[in-house]
Amino acid sequence: MILSVSCGLCHVTPAPDRNSCPTVSAGEKAEIGVMSAVRSGQHTRPMCFLLLLMILQLGLHTAEGVWPLPQTLISSTERFPLSPQAFYFGYGSQSAARQGCSVLDAAFKRYFYLIFPDYTSGRWNLFSDKNEKDGTLRFSVDKQFTVEVSVDHDDCDGYPNESSSERYNLSVFSGRASLKAVTVWGALRGLETFSQLVYQDDFGSYFVNKTDIEDFPRFQFRGILLDTSRHYLPVQAILKTLDAMAYSKFNVFHWHIVDDPSFPYQSRTFPDLSSKGAFHPMTHIYTQSDVRRVISHARMRGIRVLPEFDSPGHTKSWGKGQPDLLTPCYKGDIPSGTFGPVNPALPSTYQFMATLFKEVSVVFPDSFIHLGGDEVNFSCWKSNPYVRAFMQKMGFGSDFTKLEAFYMENIINITSALNKTSIVWQDVFDYHERIPKDTVLHIWKGTPASYYAELSRMTKAGMRVVLAAPWYINHISYGQDWHNYYTVQPLNFSGTEEQKKLVIGGEVCMWGEYVDATNLTPRLWPRASAAAERLWSDEKQTSNVDKAFPRLQDFRCKLVRRGIQAEPLYVGHCKQEYQGV
Amino acid sequence: MILSVSCGLCHVTPAPDRNSCPTVSAGEKAEIGVMSAVRSGQHTRPMCFLLLLMILQLGLHTAEGVWPLPQTLISSTERFPLSPQAFYFGYGSQSAARQGCSVLDAAFKRYFYLIFPDYTSGRWNLFSDKNEKDGTLRFSVDKQFTVEVSVDHDDCDGYPNESSSERYNLSVFSGRASLKAVTVWGALRGLETFSQLVYQDDFGSYFVNKTDIEDFPRFQFRGILLDTSRHYLPVQAILKTLDAMAYSKFNVFHWHIVDDPSFPYQSRTFPDLSSKGAFHPMTHIYTQSDVRRVISHARMRGIRVLPEFDSPGHTKSWGKGQPDLLTPCYKGDIPSGTFGPVNPALPSTYQFMATLFKEVSVVFPDSFIHLGGDEVNFSCWKSNPYVRAFMQKMGFGSDFTKLEAFYMENIINITSALNKTSIVWQDVFDYHERIPKDTVLHIWKGTPASYYAELSRMTKAGMRVVLAAPWYINHISYGQDWHNYYTVQPLNFSGTEEQKKLVIGGEVCMWGEYVDATNLTPRLWPRASAAAERLWSDEKQTSNVDKAFPRLQDFRCKLVRRGIQAEPLYVGHCKQEYQGV
Repeated sequence: MILSVSCGLCHVTPAPDRNSCPTVSAGEKAEIGVMSAVRSGQHTRPMCFLLLLMILQLGLHTAEGVWPLPQTLISSTERFPLSPQAFYFGYGSQSAARQGCSVLDAAFKRYFYLIFPDYTSGRWNLFSDKNEKDGTLRFSVDKQFTVEVSVDHDDCDGYPNESSSERYNLSVFSGRASLKAVTVWGALRGLETFSQLVYQDDFGSYFVNKTDIEDFPRFQFRGILLDTSRHYLPVQAILKTLDAMAYSKFNVFHWHIVDDPSFPYQSRTFPDLSSKGAFHPMTHIYTQSDVRRVISHARMRGIRVLPEFDSPGHTKSWGKGQPDLLTPCYKGDIPSGTFGPVNPALPSTYQFMATLFKEVSVVFPDSFIHLGGDEVNFSCWKSNPYVRAFMQKMGFGSDFTKLEAFYMENIINITSALNKTSIVWQDVFDYHERIPKDTVLHIWKGTPASYYAELSRMTKAGMRVVLAAPWYINHISYGQDWHNYYTVQPLNFSGTEEQKKLVIGGEVCMWGEYVDATNLTPRLWPRASAAAERLWSDEKQTSNVDKAFPRLQDFRCKLVRRGIQAEPLYVGHCKQEYQGV
Repeated sequence: MILSVSCGLCHVTPAPDRNSCPTVSAGEKAEIGVMSAVRSGQHTRPMCFLLLLMILQLGLHTAEGVWPLPQTLISSTERFPLSPQAFYFGYGSQSAARQGCSVLDAAFKRYFYLIFPDYTSGRWNLFSDKNEKDGTLRFSVDKQFTVEVSVDHDDCDGYPNESSSERYNLSVFSGRASLKAVTVWGALRGLETFSQLVYQDDFGSYFVNKTDIEDFPRFQFRGILLDTSRHYLPVQAILKTLDAMAYSKFNVFHWHIVDDPSFPYQSRTFPDLSSKGAFHPMTHIYTQSDVRRVISHARMRGIRVLPEFDSPGHTKSWGKGQPDLLTPCYKGDIPSGTFGPVNPALPSTYQFMATLFKEVSVVFPDSFIHLGGDEVNFSCWKSNPYVRAFMQKMGFGSDFTKLEAFYMENIINITSALNKTSIVWQDVFDYHERIPKDTVLHIWKGTPASYYAELSRMTKAGMRVVLAAPWYINHISYGQDWHNYYTVQPLNFSGTEEQKKLVIGGEVCMWGEYVDATNLTPRLWPRASAAAERLWSDEKQTSNVDKAFPRLQDFRCKLVRRGIQAEPLYVGHCKQEYQGV
């Protein structure tokens, strides 16, 4: 029976065979529970109550476990057993990508492990093995199940980009599922959804319910920033973050790779930058091979790697390996021995930057490069007589924002010449509204009131925007602060529909002052997943934190089951607790 | 050369061969650095500056790395090489404990691994192995170093208790160290200190400096509370916490083992309590064997295990496995189906409690039992006609604090009859000042102003007190909140010297609403270590957070090196980063 009713306000209790956390009684769960079937824009209350009762009586598993919530989801009480011995992924006959497609071949294997954790951990009782040891041929009595994947474009060897479709349709029938997507990146999202639909009953048997899903992201750009300068993050910690990002359907890894405290990027062209600017020249660096590994791991999960080389501020560590790059600060008439931002008055600065960004544009295949441009302190520039003379020569008077604008314009031009799109922190727009129209602005400051004003102003100027301000997830506080990340309304600013389309997405920022590999994962997950649903799902269907709570608790237990050290939301437990102690 | 000068205000820069975090420049470090030699109460400023200069010139390693800071520490520039091939722990000829002493034998082996991590991880180039494989006998050319341990009492097979001496003297000479203590528990503290004195130079060679230490704890009771009811903590997570506790010289593990959400303690007498009250009857319980393992692991580290069976409130989970224990709440004249605190009006309640505590008193060898007694909500008692009738019969009128006092008095009497000392949350004293004088009160509420008032009042009444209020470490906030835990002044309340002696110690509480095995360790360490120094060290020598900062950063890197997932204090790095991702 298919529950074809649309039921955005209808809640069901999570089935007892799930990783539910029993601090909420069954009765309470029925109240604050989760959607079983959603289709945006329609609500049929009486049907829902009937449905709710039916589902409660049947103790039914439903698709509430998919996080972030798909745009349209119709699920049924009918369930199909899955046997890891007779489960296959395959390519549809019409698919443009076929066997040999690196992205999907690898994803099939990966998702097999994620779907059947008991089996692949060796805890499964392999009945067939015995027969095989006896030399007898065993024909499986298990009913086969095949997930047939079809994509319109063979983009198996490319990289996801800012216009890649992530749309997919997923239909689960008896004995098979059909997953259709425009691109392999969309197929990856569908595989993630399928993996979350599979569940085990009380006896460990795997099932998936009859389901129909049409899904696509609300925003194209759904990022996570990691800061590898304030603390070095081992490559393994980055790869694990990419894994978890894919589980929440994030698609941009914004790598804030260098900053004041350290320069861990090992440049081919300027090796001194890391050998002198990293915390340690051998152990606390990212080699070219490390970077390739990160980019490749991300690509296989449909994640773009957006590198940030922030300047002219936040560059103290650069100065150690690149003489004459930073501005010498003066005390009166003599250099004080300290250094300020990058020196915008020297031609050598731009030669250096052009060479560095040429390398960066080759190493990082993404079409975006983040140029930073935030928090430039003018006091050192002001103190330097040569900088002041340059200001006079250029006709900037004593307006240092003009000097900063001049510098950023030059850097953006360098990036444009390399056929890359620049993304810059909002500061650049704040003092320099006439930057190239294809530059993307990144909002990081302020309260809702102030970032709404900024969104209006920037989009009115025709600029594309990424919103990060409400998702500074490094800021912690006691209690369920994921509510703050969940209840953001990114488009709730005054502006036309055209303006709203210019908000290309949002980003969760994990700045590194207090974060390294010891606490990154529990601080990031599942709090970032709250933002993930805001950026992927329909806001009308996902505006209520009470409804989201048991779903997110359930999803968090899935993360733990998958080896992600995701912290608890509140009192309770997971069926499989974290075993990594 | 021994720096016998007393120098509480004198700072040195940590030697570059340590796990220092170079966000602070060398010059800044010299300013905010750490004490090299301390003896309480004396300061000789000019000598200190001279000393500082000398030490800076020599690039000397000093004993700043010991956390918590010993009471008296004299260290020297003279250093002795240590070879893991020729390093021994042994018993002094006058020692009451000899080989075969379980606690010290195990500690010797454990500390060997902690002192020589490179060697024991197999990364050491074992030159001698080759010779041995060739069959040739190899006489070590390394100079031997022996740590000779002597204790006055052979308490090897006992448990630490509230009056165990933890005092020790440690002297490091050429080729040997002498560690003298009253008890094996004091010897354990000295071994920890010795292990922190050893360091590696830039070439990986191990050294220890000539040092003299006299040390003892400021407070006898230095506890950490873990809450295993709101989330289940795997035994392994508890054992790891005990390891880290020993590194910070904590000596009481307060096991808040059961509470409303779950009852994981598997009782011999009442197995239904956990089979019905735990999150899961098999996977989320502590068996008798688990409990023994925890107690044994703690004993080997000189840590007492103080169990808490909190009642009459905080007992929801008890009711699932023990019918008629909780008070049925009424709505008007009929039971509402919900339950309140333990029913104090039934004789069966006290029979049950007597039986349970008899078991608990045998299972947990410590002389203290924590009886809880906090946050009792009277509304359910008020609603119940039988409870009200009991109130009338007992002459309590409508004063429910009298009923609560009556209940706690009974429970305390049960505990006393089992020859155990009761410890209760402050609530019990607040409504019932005439509880037995040997009961220990546990302050958990309020701001400094209010807990100082409570400390005055309780000690004036002659009661012993443990202070927990300022160390609710489950409460998190952004930034360096360890300052709050470090700057507590536990004895800064108005009272006589006699009153101050009644403050037997303090406790760091990690309540479990938002904490399980995924985030326990980084949330606990090194923040709890800040409290550890407050409870062990001389307050006058350790009152400045700026001086403490680089020492605590260094200690945190030691924890990471030892496999404790301790989070960073601020921007920077450790020589050996956390490898557990």
